[in-house]
Amino acid sequence: MRRWVGEQRQAEKSIGFVPTMGYLHAGHLSLAHRARAENDRVVMSIFVNPTQFGAGEDYAVYPRDLDRDAALARSAGVDVLFAPAAAVIYPAGHSTYVAVEGLTEPLCGRSRPTHFRGVTTVVTILFNLVRPHRAYFGQKDAQQAIVIRRLVRDLAFDLEVVVCPIVREPDGLAMSSRNVFLRPEERQAALVLSRSLAGAQALIAAGERDAGKVLAFVRDAIGREALVRPDYIEMVDTAALAPVGAIAGEILLAVAAYVGKTRLIDNLLLEVDNI
Amino acid sequence: MRRWVGEQRQAEKSIGFVPTMGYLHAGHLSLAHRARAENDRVVMSIFVNPTQFGAGEDYAVYPRDLDRDAALARSAGVDVLFAPAAAVIYPAGHSTYVAVEGLTEPLCGRSRPTHFRGVTTVVTILFNLVRPHRAYFGQKDAQQAIVIRRLVRDLAFDLEVVVCPIVREPDGLAMSSRNVFLRPEERQAALVLSRSLAGAQALIAAGERDAGKVLAFVRDAIGREALVRPDYIEMVDTAALAPVGAIAGEILLAVAAYVGKTRLIDNLLLEVDNI
Repeated sequence: MRRWVGEQRQAEKSIGFVPTMGYLHAGHLSLAHRARAENDRVVMSIFVNPTQFGAGEDYAVYPRDLDRDAALARSAGVDVLFAPAAAVIYPAGHSTYVAVEGLTEPLCGRSRPTHFRGVTTVVTILFNLVRPHRAYFGQKDAQQAIVIRRLVRDLAFDLEVVVCPIVREPDGLAMSSRNVFLRPEERQAALVLSRSLAGAQALIAAGERDAGKVLAFVRDAIGREALVRPDYIEMVDTAALAPVGAIAGEILLAVAAYVGKTRLIDNLLLEVDNI
Repeated sequence: MRRWVGEQRQAEKSIGFVPTMGYLHAGHLSLAHRARAENDRVVMSIFVNPTQFGAGEDYAVYPRDLDRDAALARSAGVDVLFAPAAAVIYPAGHSTYVAVEGLTEPLCGRSRPTHFRGVTTVVTILFNLVRPHRAYFGQKDAQQAIVIRRLVRDLAFDLEVVVCPIVREPDGLAMSSRNVFLRPEERQAALVLSRSLAGAQALIAAGERDAGKVLAFVRDAIGREALVRPDYIEMVDTAALAPVGAIAGEILLAVAAYVGKTRLIDNLLLEVDNI
């Protein structure tokens, strides 16, 4: 990886980087296509990162299929697929962690207190190995994207973070590698997440500016699905991820919920004018 | 800084980097000379890093003299002196920290619990700005050198860490920017640190392999100086910084002590054969 990157940089080729945990879906591939369009070279990593899973989470059963991923990545224009062993990323005695404070505490940080530390640590390691000019992340992981932007600014990484829109199934469900865990009735119930967000968007488009009322609408809709247990439903500003009362400026409406045993997230990013 | 580094790397010039907090002495200059000999270009940073000082430590009064430092750096062959403002390194809202666990807990970490987190954070930022091929640190800060080596390995920085020997005053006192704080009688009392380490080295050379006996010798010598209050006196292995009972292999005998209000450190690094 290092040698190849050194050669590309010496030849003044720009490198686009798509870090993933594999089991690729159309969301990942949209990142690869965007990277392909904007760079001379495209690197995708596939690494199910142990440090971003908490105890009792789904690290062991997280879906993996490297052969299928390789074919999909190739078809999306990826030049190099980087799938390191865990011992390459975390050699024996590894004890260095990168943490973004503050932004990692609300939303997903509340139920997954060590998750983002794992993400920012592995992203730092991968950035140092791949040395990309641009790195691509999905808006589905809205908090992650905001945390990574802060990481890159605060540690002075010389690269651009590109955040790409959520890709959805035809019925609205946000693409996720974890959707494979859903049984048919759970798959159906999970639609309440995207449906309630779309309803919230309609309310706001119609002029609603009271965050509490919009949140009550989403909470009520999700509450009516017996198979769905919300983790959080929040409306926050995108600078500090602090809850807002009035809806104005750049606003993130973010939800996380357990559908059966599977934890799913979805969100709506809005730029809202005062009316 | 970024533009210059990009140009040098494009021209395949190697970059040696000497990070300092300024108020240069012969120890710093020995790093610059070594960097000069081993690289095409030499960058020295001067940055009194606020995050590595604890509450009540000497950040505000740490000695500073940029004009003098610039002249000394130039005479030592430094090509670029990088002296950023604190707001360049830590822009408003900075909240990302790099921490090496384990190695930062004993020795200096015990009395300075946030010190190394500040060091590893600023070194990460500086590495990302300067992108050196080699970075130079002094053996005087023995624990720091070991922590930085771990940082570089764990975060996969593509650079070599070079650790240079302690430079001492003619009477044995290890060079330190903080020596300027010592009043004449304190300056004299401080000699007990290097003198007791030299005595310990003589004991070990004579065959002593009991760490407890060597430590007792050093503790006793330092204890007889009324102006010197030890923080720690320890003998540890260099892999984990864990205390050793028998002296064998690569051993660090490290001391930290307050001389008046000034905290000084010194150490002895030994490769000891079994006899």
